Amino acid sequence: MAERSLIVDGCQYANWSEKIFREMRAGGVGAVHVTICYHEDFRETVQNMIVWNRWFERFPDLIVQARTAADVRQAHADGRTAIIFGFQNPSPIEDDIGLVEICHGLGARFMQLSYNNQSLLATGCYEAEDPGITRMGRQVIKEMNRVGLVVDMSHSAERSTLEAIEISERPIAITHANPASWHPALRNKSDTVLKALAESGGMLGFSMYPHHLAGKSDCTLESFCTMIARTAELMGVERIGFGSDLCQDQPDSIVEWMRVGTWSKEIDYGEGSAAQAGFPPQPDWFTSNADFPGLADGLRAVGFDAEDVARIMGGNWLDFFERSFGPMTAGPIAAA
Amino acid sequence: MAERSLIVDGCQYANWSEKIFREMRAGGVGAVHVTICYHEDFRETVQNMIVWNRWFERFPDLIVQARTAADVRQAHADGRTAIIFGFQNPSPIEDDIGLVEICHGLGARFMQLSYNNQSLLATGCYEAEDPGITRMGRQVIKEMNRVGLVVDMSHSAERSTLEAIEISERPIAITHANPASWHPALRNKSDTVLKALAESGGMLGFSMYPHHLAGKSDCTLESFCTMIARTAELMGVERIGFGSDLCQDQPDSIVEWMRVGTWSKEIDYGEGSAAQAGFPPQPDWFTSNADFPGLADGLRAVGFDAEDVARIMGGNWLDFFERSFGPMTAGPIAAA
Repeated sequence: MAERSLIVDGCQYANWSEKIFREMRAGGVGAVHVTICYHEDFRETVQNMIVWNRWFERFPDLIVQARTAADVRQAHADGRTAIIFGFQNPSPIEDDIGLVEICHGLGARFMQLSYNNQSLLATGCYEAEDPGITRMGRQVIKEMNRVGLVVDMSHSAERSTLEAIEISERPIAITHANPASWHPALRNKSDTVLKALAESGGMLGFSMYPHHLAGKSDCTLESFCTMIARTAELMGVERIGFGSDLCQDQPDSIVEWMRVGTWSKEIDYGEGSAAQAGFPPQPDWFTSNADFPGLADGLRAVGFDAEDVARIMGGNWLDFFERSFGPMTAGPIAAA
Repeated sequence: MAERSLIVDGCQYANWSEKIFREMRAGGVGAVHVTICYHEDFRETVQNMIVWNRWFERFPDLIVQARTAADVRQAHADGRTAIIFGFQNPSPIEDDIGLVEICHGLGARFMQLSYNNQSLLATGCYEAEDPGITRMGRQVIKEMNRVGLVVDMSHSAERSTLEAIEISERPIAITHANPASWHPALRNKSDTVLKALAESGGMLGFSMYPHHLAGKSDCTLESFCTMIARTAELMGVERIGFGSDLCQDQPDSIVEWMRVGTWSKEIDYGEGSAAQAGFPPQPDWFTSNADFPGLADGLRAVGFDAEDVARIMGGNWLDFFERSFGPMTAGPIAAA
């Protein structure tokens, strides 16, 4: 059941600061899935968690770590923003399936099976060939299902994504992408993928990253919200939310690192180009967490009723968290 | 308040197997603090946790990980043995105070500040000099207090132990040792330490490791229980329990590794000697977890009433877990 007042962002990777945490509160954002790994190995990811633990300790009135839907509800009731850890790449589990449960124990709740490139588990959206989910990928999906770590295919290729939806016994997420029918980018998703995702009970988070928007930085709020209305018809209004991909206050060196990590000595421009290598400017209607209320206005303007607006703004994500973050069956794993 | 039927062992490092887990059930053991690190660094300790996670998955009817006193009670109600992780050395936090909260997040609930030798935090019981708690030690104790990771001084030297009791804002534990007044071993504790421990609300777990026993492997149950009665007079019956130090089914190569880890190329015999380098034989009244009920008989035989027996067998440890495993104050740390 949707909760009217909760706002959830299904993906951000900002240059975190007190300013941004205060903007989360100003925007009434109840929960954010934050990326804590792009290319880091396990030990480096733990170091990123330590940095987050210091944020939690320094700003207990603004943010709190969430491991369950109940934690999100509690944070919302307390007027704090719930922070949910996630990985954009399976690099933190290295080549060890045992690290899936360890990472879940440390609070990770989303993990992409691949980030643009081929991984040990699945194919990324920029590879020329997509052979589908690997042998290890099948085992890891099963383990992720068991412990309650959500499969995220935002940066994965089409066949791998369809296979992940099929193989996973629990609904998966595409936390940050838009329909390719609206803006044909390699990172956006085909209607085939979106329909399969919706039929399996999964979630799509709409991205406000300019490279994923029709018209890029010039995309209008009306165009964005009209696309959402069309996607609601395709997928059902219960299967959609936001995943802004907001990379606020990051220097351009960060987008370069996102793109090449340690896998290449040559620059790869990803969604950008040599002429536009840096972060593109955000559309003026979404530059920070404080702009979330304006999105609700935009949804109302294209005809969504109050209940659907509440669902899209956060209720659907909360329902998904409820179904996804705990162990699959009662058994040996304590609900963390 | 003591729970009559719960048995808790405050320290074991067995060569874990289905056989031993079944002996835990046969002995009615409700909870065991298991050592998952002697000398391992963070990454190696995580690997040991992965091994434990496989045990939990393979034997869900016998064992379950516990992170809270409530988990211990639930396991007891379900007829499973609660397994609580602990470190005999601060090596898993390496030189990074941020790893204290990470390790707590992964379920660690006890950490010794030193193991026989000088550590970054405190002095071990075999060092010639004991300069007390170090600068980093003071910071780490504060952090352990904050998150709910219990300071354990079982293998630490006298001054460091007294200082840890003083510095720590929460009661500490000596999970496995006996009074030196009964058996003067370097690993056993002076009455000064035991009194300070008791006055601060801490806990002593009586060891059944032969090098800690008067008469060693020939120690009688009566001698052991008479010592417990005397210690109850010294410390109060609320401050004592068991910490068997049971190293069942371990090959002698393990005790050698416990003693030298990676710190020495030369063999160090610790509590043993060149003539008796291996694990000493256990006294015949305590060779496995199945022997715990006999300890209760021994306590009754030296005059403890039913309530005190229940306290010593496990109720006191449960009370201590209740006070010790959560964050010090309501605040940013989610109760794991």
